[in-house]
Amino acid sequence: MSLRVAKIMTYCFGIKVDRGLILCSDSRTNAGVDNVCIYSKMHTFLWPGDRMFATLSAGNLATTQAVVKRLNSDASANVVPSLLSVGSMQDAADYVGTLSSATQREQASRDAANGTKTNFGATFIFGGQIAGMPPELYMIYPQGNYIHEPPKHPYLQTGETKYGKPILDRVIRHDTALEQAARCALVSMDSSIRANLTVGAPVELLVYERDSLSAGHRLYLTEDDPFAREVKKRWNEGLLLALQNLPLFAWEQSDSQDAAHGTGQVFPFPVNK
Amino acid sequence: MSLRVAKIMTYCFGIKVDRGLILCSDSRTNAGVDNVCIYSKMHTFLWPGDRMFATLSAGNLATTQAVVKRLNSDASANVVPSLLSVGSMQDAADYVGTLSSATQREQASRDAANGTKTNFGATFIFGGQIAGMPPELYMIYPQGNYIHEPPKHPYLQTGETKYGKPILDRVIRHDTALEQAARCALVSMDSSIRANLTVGAPVELLVYERDSLSAGHRLYLTEDDPFAREVKKRWNEGLLLALQNLPLFAWEQSDSQDAAHGTGQVFPFPVNK
Repeated sequence: MSLRVAKIMTYCFGIKVDRGLILCSDSRTNAGVDNVCIYSKMHTFLWPGDRMFATLSAGNLATTQAVVKRLNSDASANVVPSLLSVGSMQDAADYVGTLSSATQREQASRDAANGTKTNFGATFIFGGQIAGMPPELYMIYPQGNYIHEPPKHPYLQTGETKYGKPILDRVIRHDTALEQAARCALVSMDSSIRANLTVGAPVELLVYERDSLSAGHRLYLTEDDPFAREVKKRWNEGLLLALQNLPLFAWEQSDSQDAAHGTGQVFPFPVNK
Repeated sequence: MSLRVAKIMTYCFGIKVDRGLILCSDSRTNAGVDNVCIYSKMHTFLWPGDRMFATLSAGNLATTQAVVKRLNSDASANVVPSLLSVGSMQDAADYVGTLSSATQREQASRDAANGTKTNFGATFIFGGQIAGMPPELYMIYPQGNYIHEPPKHPYLQTGETKYGKPILDRVIRHDTALEQAARCALVSMDSSIRANLTVGAPVELLVYERDSLSAGHRLYLTEDDPFAREVKKRWNEGLLLALQNLPLFAWEQSDSQDAAHGTGQVFPFPVNK
């Protein structure tokens, strides 16, 4: 399998809090475990003071690269629609979804003519803001349709989502402070990287403050980045402390280990004699 | 689909630390989201002072129930082999694996005669100790073969494993204190239950101290159990504290939000004009 059709196993997610947007992605792509590369999955499009968009991409690398190139060239050529012409974030999501599905359709028809059958699907996390409107966050499916973040847990994930979900689930709310949400994002990403070889550093993080219509803060954190290492170290220390502060079992309090009892309902052992 | 062939979506895992064994399971079984039941997935077999075994099961409910019944009846009838006759934990794992694959084979042949094709597979987490020997922990596959825990991260999981893996991965080592490992198990289970509807309370937890050859401590924690609620509450508090102790981003320290910079390598935005 060539890199042109490399399947990205990845972890990408976006968070929308009251104070802004966070986007976070790993940088590992692979076409099998013996063909691993580093590609940025984060692309940003900025017209300062007017509009800011950012995409994270998962899926077929040729598809995602083609879509990003087209987003740039359409805007440069001032065609309509483009990221420069769209009047709302929803129109922007619609435009990205249309480009993505058209790209896949084109590739699939060539593929069919060759008698092969490749998965050209790609998923995008898409966030941004247009002046005078609130920031928005979308997940754009390979089919070109899209959803916004759920109301209670305002984040959207794609790729290898499960390892990093519990921490987002426990922490992220609308009123979570922007930088707090960004630190939570780094922890969520670290949990995935530890667990899954196909998710790997460098980690890219975009912290966009609502109404700034600016580039925001963008970090590119390699594995041995001092800040990233300090986050990991302190997080592990914090978890151990959290664990030490959990309540004792009843038998620890009574200091007796003879009886089978707990603070939960006791469920006696069947004793086979 | 009847409950006889209900597929258990579940989360079961075992931990082996120097001081003993922890086994933990949820209690939700389902044959589709509209057919959810509560069944214990933990079964224990004890001959005090001589031997203790415990199984956690995932997969086809009819298969796992048949295997557990047979484990009990073989021991009661004093046949060889049985959990009472086996001379080592490995022999015991072999015996459970053989029973499991024989049960599946029998069901599959009846199924084939009926012209249907059902998945009768079941996976067991199997731990225990025989007097004079160390405790051991195995994962027994549907094929009847088995593995012990990995040396560096001494735990084994089956079912919906991903949500609960990061905390085990960060905390569990050989020298983790027994009760500390047990609290970590409850957190791991809670992460899965929060994330996946097919994993649900009550939670069963077995804490077995090495060389006790006793029933150990067994908890049955319903959703509104005060101890379980206190664990969740303090864990959430501890996580928020851990998050608050993470290092600040560079722009927070300098109190300037104008420049796009971080402590990581700066990755400048492409600015489309």
